[in-house]
Amino acid sequence: MAKTKKILVPLDGSKYSKKVIQYACDFSIAFDAEIILIYVVEKSMPVNLLDQKEYLKILRKFGKKTLDNAKSILAKKQLDAKIILAQGNIVNEINKTAKKEKCDLIIVGNKGLGAVGRVLLGSVSNKLAQSSTCSLVIVK
Amino acid sequence: MAKTKKILVPLDGSKYSKKVIQYACDFSIAFDAEIILIYVVEKSMPVNLLDQKEYLKILRKFGKKTLDNAKSILAKKQLDAKIILAQGNIVNEINKTAKKEKCDLIIVGNKGLGAVGRVLLGSVSNKLAQSSTCSLVIVK
Repeated sequence: MAKTKKILVPLDGSKYSKKVIQYACDFSIAFDAEIILIYVVEKSMPVNLLDQKEYLKILRKFGKKTLDNAKSILAKKQLDAKIILAQGNIVNEINKTAKKEKCDLIIVGNKGLGAVGRVLLGSVSNKLAQSSTCSLVIVK
Repeated sequence: MAKTKKILVPLDGSKYSKKVIQYACDFSIAFDAEIILIYVVEKSMPVNLLDQKEYLKILRKFGKKTLDNAKSILAKKQLDAKIILAQGNIVNEINKTAKKEKCDLIIVGNKGLGAVGRVLLGSVSNKLAQSSTCSLVIVK
């Protein structure tokens, strides 16, 4: 099999991301693997209260902050990470990036990664489990 | 977080198990973790052709052989493994064993682990992703 050399870590800035980042550190150290942190700004999010453009701007800012925070947690453990701020459908963007970057593994939280409403549509981790072409760690 | 020290690896003897065993080896070496191999004989399997008792006997024999084969693959890499032959509902038995043995991680294949018909009911990996209390690697 291909060794685990590149790990994609989708984040959403929720409290659940913390454990995912810990896993990313452990896996990166254990396998001597690169880490790519990704935050996907969802275009398709229903927006009632704010102007769509303004809302996406806020989300992008939040995403950038989430990625920077995670990168600094990794830096404390002498780990470097590439960060990617994407926009679109969250599952599609993760799968697209995993392919483009030739990742061997995706580490994703079981909770988090989206609004409560998304639970009804099936969680991101469930969708990735079905659609991802690379192996997946679901952090509980 | 708790370190990855004990890994549960459900096998079904299908060709897909091969990659799962490779992952188990890699993870065991990377994390210096123990491996437990499990095969679950499903009681609930529909049996039309054979006597139920006879059928379960054949499955147990196949399960034992599957576990022994995997154990010998691991031994070639100087890795030891505990083997467990269980009987019951496959997802329940895996979750029960993960708890009882205090496993930190389950490594499971995306394919395999059951008859074609089970795809309709949702694969074992999907069910584990939803029900397992410990983190899960889904091998693609």
